[in-house]
Amino acid sequence: MELEVLKNSFHQHVRDLQDRITREMQALDPQLVMKEDPWTRTDHAGHPGGGGITRAFQGELFENAGVNTSCVHGKIDPQFAKHLQGSGDEMWAAGISLIIHPKNPRVPTVHANFRMIHQGNKFWFGGGADLTPYYPYEDDFTYFHGIWKKAAGTDYETMKKTCDEYFNNSHRGLEMRGIGGIFFDHMNSGNTEEDVKKVKHLSEHFIESYFPIVKKRMSENWNEEDEDFMLHRRGRYVEFNLLHDRGTLFGLRTNGRVDSILISLPARCKYSYQYKPKVGSPHEKMWGYYTPKAW
Amino acid sequence: MELEVLKNSFHQHVRDLQDRITREMQALDPQLVMKEDPWTRTDHAGHPGGGGITRAFQGELFENAGVNTSCVHGKIDPQFAKHLQGSGDEMWAAGISLIIHPKNPRVPTVHANFRMIHQGNKFWFGGGADLTPYYPYEDDFTYFHGIWKKAAGTDYETMKKTCDEYFNNSHRGLEMRGIGGIFFDHMNSGNTEEDVKKVKHLSEHFIESYFPIVKKRMSENWNEEDEDFMLHRRGRYVEFNLLHDRGTLFGLRTNGRVDSILISLPARCKYSYQYKPKVGSPHEKMWGYYTPKAW
Repeated sequence: MELEVLKNSFHQHVRDLQDRITREMQALDPQLVMKEDPWTRTDHAGHPGGGGITRAFQGELFENAGVNTSCVHGKIDPQFAKHLQGSGDEMWAAGISLIIHPKNPRVPTVHANFRMIHQGNKFWFGGGADLTPYYPYEDDFTYFHGIWKKAAGTDYETMKKTCDEYFNNSHRGLEMRGIGGIFFDHMNSGNTEEDVKKVKHLSEHFIESYFPIVKKRMSENWNEEDEDFMLHRRGRYVEFNLLHDRGTLFGLRTNGRVDSILISLPARCKYSYQYKPKVGSPHEKMWGYYTPKAW
Repeated sequence: MELEVLKNSFHQHVRDLQDRITREMQALDPQLVMKEDPWTRTDHAGHPGGGGITRAFQGELFENAGVNTSCVHGKIDPQFAKHLQGSGDEMWAAGISLIIHPKNPRVPTVHANFRMIHQGNKFWFGGGADLTPYYPYEDDFTYFHGIWKKAAGTDYETMKKTCDEYFNNSHRGLEMRGIGGIFFDHMNSGNTEEDVKKVKHLSEHFIESYFPIVKKRMSENWNEEDEDFMLHRRGRYVEFNLLHDRGTLFGLRTNGRVDSILISLPARCKYSYQYKPKVGSPHEKMWGYYTPKAW
């Protein structure tokens, strides 16, 4: 298949997925307010360089969320070009990136992104999906990983391990942001058509991996202790995103659109000196899940 | 004066200042709970390397605060030694570092630190104090800067400019964390005895620069809008500390004591997509102060 056709089909795919995820959220949260911001950018040479569609959400079920797509192209900083996989100072990238922070602590936070990059003579792919729950519903964790196991097939073990390693707050030793999922980067089999198919196939499982858990938990009552625990874990989420997340730091350092990048931060969070969940609480049990486990 | 005597006198000075600041806080906030954690460390060679005293506070007036001192010494990573000012792989450092986040949005957040470092054949000093207010009480800002002008004398202009430049959330363009104060680093006049005297003299002004503002504002009523604004600005505080603050990033990368380092984060904060204060509100006016100004 012609390269331009492949690229367009990937971009079209993530745009379509953005719409479908938006509809899922709207169906579950009638109070949901969406702010859609289309944006454009200029490339390193000052020419039109594509843009994106940022969708910011605030609701009753989904306290805050961002479901963004972008398709950017053009000249890049030659210094930066050297750091990348490809050759040449022209680049093209398209992808979807999303984060959903529900208000109810029984409903997990989720993050996912899927992207395709073309530089010079090379294509590569990255992405994944990971869950950050605040209540020890092991069934939900098994379910989430089960969907990604089905989606990724023989790649699951590697992608799961990469995810466990990546989403770790290393300044705190071994303490994952959540319970993982899958993550991959620099994926490039040599057959771009096959790679596009594979990443589309993976991304098609996002809705199935997450929204059934939302539906199952969204009507549960929660108490102040549940909320306090969630707010502290969201504090850890901020720590990860601002200290370790390559996408966030890369975006901020290359003058990305700050509002679209920091949309990942939770609406509210808490920090306490030497925070620990209460002994014997479900939250203490939950804490034990923030380490790599076989699902 | 003998070097060991100078070093001990600086360490003794910051310990004493820690006690006096603690007493100021306790006198103003009868609900204040203090958790004191003395800690020790081993150096790069595995030998005893000094330690510190972390004091974490939670109260009614002071929602959360940390007033820490440390005096560390011993072998350092040879790679790291090269990055520093001095020579040799032995180092000694003592200092005080504090942050106070009041609950009442009419009372500003404050941060200060003063440190002395000795490596090989060289001594140098760093530190400063800066204010992060959430309500446009210009009198308070003039007062705070006035004290530091008096304290720093002819150094004020340079230290004030360095502070404006340092405490900036550069990923958002020109947007300071607060309204500045003074900041200096790598100070070394060649006369260590004079430098010790100078930094002691500066640090002696901290109590006078901050607590009179607290006393003036602590009984004021505030409303939900004041609090919402403060919580969003505290979000910016977290952004600065985790993305830009050299002390925080250095501490986390060199296996510093995580709890003592991240004590700087506010107990509660908020993030909203494209947050802006209400048009015509005092908070919109306050926003205008987060840029360099002559005081």
